[in-house]
Amino acid sequence: MTDTSPQPCDLLIEAGWVVPVEPHGVVLADHAVAVSDGRIVAVLPTAQARARFVPAQTVQRPDAALIPGLVNAHTHNPMSLLRGIADDLPLMTWLQQHIWPVEAAVIGPDFVADGVALAVAEMLRGGTTCANENYFFPDVQAAVYKKHGFRALVGAVVIDFPTAWASSDDEYFARAIELHDQWRDDPLIDTAFAPHAPYTVSDANFERIRMLADQMDLPVHLHLHETAQEVADSLRDHGQRPLARLDRLGLVNDRLIAVHMTQLTDAEIHLCAARGVSVVHCAESNLKLASGFCPVCALQRAGVNLAIGTDGCASNNDLDMFGELRTAALLAKAVAGDATALDAATTMHAATLGGARALGLDQRIGSIEPGKEADLVCVDLSALEAQPLHNVLSQLVYATGRQQVSDVWIAGRRKLDARVLVDMDIDAVVANARQWRQRIASLAPL
Amino acid sequence: MTDTSPQPCDLLIEAGWVVPVEPHGVVLADHAVAVSDGRIVAVLPTAQARARFVPAQTVQRPDAALIPGLVNAHTHNPMSLLRGIADDLPLMTWLQQHIWPVEAAVIGPDFVADGVALAVAEMLRGGTTCANENYFFPDVQAAVYKKHGFRALVGAVVIDFPTAWASSDDEYFARAIELHDQWRDDPLIDTAFAPHAPYTVSDANFERIRMLADQMDLPVHLHLHETAQEVADSLRDHGQRPLARLDRLGLVNDRLIAVHMTQLTDAEIHLCAARGVSVVHCAESNLKLASGFCPVCALQRAGVNLAIGTDGCASNNDLDMFGELRTAALLAKAVAGDATALDAATTMHAATLGGARALGLDQRIGSIEPGKEADLVCVDLSALEAQPLHNVLSQLVYATGRQQVSDVWIAGRRKLDARVLVDMDIDAVVANARQWRQRIASLAPL
Repeated sequence: MTDTSPQPCDLLIEAGWVVPVEPHGVVLADHAVAVSDGRIVAVLPTAQARARFVPAQTVQRPDAALIPGLVNAHTHNPMSLLRGIADDLPLMTWLQQHIWPVEAAVIGPDFVADGVALAVAEMLRGGTTCANENYFFPDVQAAVYKKHGFRALVGAVVIDFPTAWASSDDEYFARAIELHDQWRDDPLIDTAFAPHAPYTVSDANFERIRMLADQMDLPVHLHLHETAQEVADSLRDHGQRPLARLDRLGLVNDRLIAVHMTQLTDAEIHLCAARGVSVVHCAESNLKLASGFCPVCALQRAGVNLAIGTDGCASNNDLDMFGELRTAALLAKAVAGDATALDAATTMHAATLGGARALGLDQRIGSIEPGKEADLVCVDLSALEAQPLHNVLSQLVYATGRQQVSDVWIAGRRKLDARVLVDMDIDAVVANARQWRQRIASLAPL
Repeated sequence: MTDTSPQPCDLLIEAGWVVPVEPHGVVLADHAVAVSDGRIVAVLPTAQARARFVPAQTVQRPDAALIPGLVNAHTHNPMSLLRGIADDLPLMTWLQQHIWPVEAAVIGPDFVADGVALAVAEMLRGGTTCANENYFFPDVQAAVYKKHGFRALVGAVVIDFPTAWASSDDEYFARAIELHDQWRDDPLIDTAFAPHAPYTVSDANFERIRMLADQMDLPVHLHLHETAQEVADSLRDHGQRPLARLDRLGLVNDRLIAVHMTQLTDAEIHLCAARGVSVVHCAESNLKLASGFCPVCALQRAGVNLAIGTDGCASNNDLDMFGELRTAALLAKAVAGDATALDAATTMHAATLGGARALGLDQRIGSIEPGKEADLVCVDLSALEAQPLHNVLSQLVYATGRQQVSDVWIAGRRKLDARVLVDMDIDAVVANARQWRQRIASLAPL
């Protein structure tokens, strides 16, 4: 006979519904999740859980759905300090006359640290537990994420011109290798290469990244086929579309996190599927910058792994993953001309397990399964805006606001407790943001 | 000398910022709005307001923007009870196998009354103060809106087949005339004709509507050019596109509230501009049902009055106007291929004064100007998600969630007070919604 006596666990979360994401489309009513040592131990009916476990702590959320923490698969989080600084402008005016001059004036460790801290607070309050980061000073970012117990894949930026972060190709690579070494084996922080984009990175630098990423087993996080102009320029300068050029350079494989992808032929979609490329859909950024429409339904039906990202706050203007997955699900239907495109379960998958897979973390996070790390989010469904509750998955994707997120855990550690951030000095975060507003407003007229 | 002694007023709202909408694009820092007898008396700097008025009540919101109440220019609010009942389905499957059978089983005065009450609560908590309603039992709707002090334009449905509301053409018209008579001169409730759509209304009924609308000076609220299929079917059945057919029938004029309009030629856009037609953009519904893309930037630049609506909860799935205006602003840019399309100020105009004009109410509501009725909304901008606050209009359109709405007045009467609904029994509203969920779930498998 097996031992049926109750066993201890650190935490038992009893939820009205558990949405495990894997198996696909399943909603488990009146289920509980047991957590020990930061990992999920069991997912089972609440009545059984109460008989089987003696938890150190029990959290009861009978009106909430428990979902995996959302994975924001493309961010530039220091730019949260630039939220709304220059909207409704043509792309090149926006970049050349506003974003770049402001960045030139402010970028440094303080800007990056304060921006990431603001972003961490915003992400936690919105149910996001993991960010794929792409900005200068990744060493500072990594330290801030770590300090707040937030999970991140931090990219070492490579770009063909000098910036505040590095002044030569060799310095970019030296700093990248230093970053990878420093955070190797950290339980929360992983690192990647983040070559900026095909139009700002040379063949030689891409080849160097390919070799190092292969050697060090790292993802390559890249803006790709963001606009038609990028594709036209690549044809002019390289005689190839960017994806074909990357393929020639050996980068089109399952390490590649391809962000945006608004311009794709059928052959390119099938190449991505065959090679195991992950595509990160940034619906709101693509709309706001008039970049184009990513064919997410065609990608998903071709078998390409799909993830969802907000992009930076200067082109969104928030880090609201619930808003982003809703926009993604709605937009996919009109783009495909098919109301069945990117259904609620598929969208929730992209925002969780799809994101985890893109980041190379799908063995560790992205679904509520025994053995995985306990990155978990409670979404309250009791408010009148969530009534009547005909379908939990539909409600989560099409009718949920991030303010309904009540509780968040990362690797089993409580980060949000009944809407209150744990261990973060929010007043200081907000005060810092206001100081940056003053400082940026005082810059010479842009 | 003029009398400079302080004068009494009912209410003084002191806001961090006032966004009057008219003049266009203006943000007034540290301003106050004085209200008496339900109307706006003055808009002036707070320091001056304190010297000039002796208010019976003062509301201080130094961290909030005060905006005109949002106008939801196309709703089917009883359908709030069908939120999420059948998503991710092809349009005809959705209608024929889900929405219509459920409606056939439940439609009646109770369903309509309970659905509108739930919608009123949701709209108030989201900063909406006026709805353009389009559903069966408009008499019941009008009574519920009136009971809750909510402003509405209620449409008398006309459709070529029998429904629970009326069984013949003559009965539809008799009920419409009765509705118009009953609510004539009401300060909150106005009425319109609401012929369902070109494909469900005959030439004869459209002609009758045209004659009566002209005589009675009423708007005509109509789904129009929602899909390419509708246009193709009209060409097959009438030898004309729907707009051309309506023009032949004398309905293309400044009474026409044309909803959806995803299929438009340049000539049609200019016809709408020349005739003073208002177009209601339902961005999220058009996306979710894969209906197509309304060319809002081309319409707006051609001079067509633009309004924004959520459509019903079965195709959205909420009544969140802040979400809707954000989606509209983002989507317009990608559809136009122009990041300057539908900027924040223009979007805010469409959601307020543009909506009021569509409904024929722009002399009374839609902007914060002396003489207008006091439909006002405070939006809190103090939360960390709104930091840093570089640009108030950008923040309101691109980074505000409806949960930031703190206070709402309609015609000077407080409806939401620091997030608490005034004079509504929310527990009863939610309990009713839950009963409808049970009842709908118990229907024969759909």
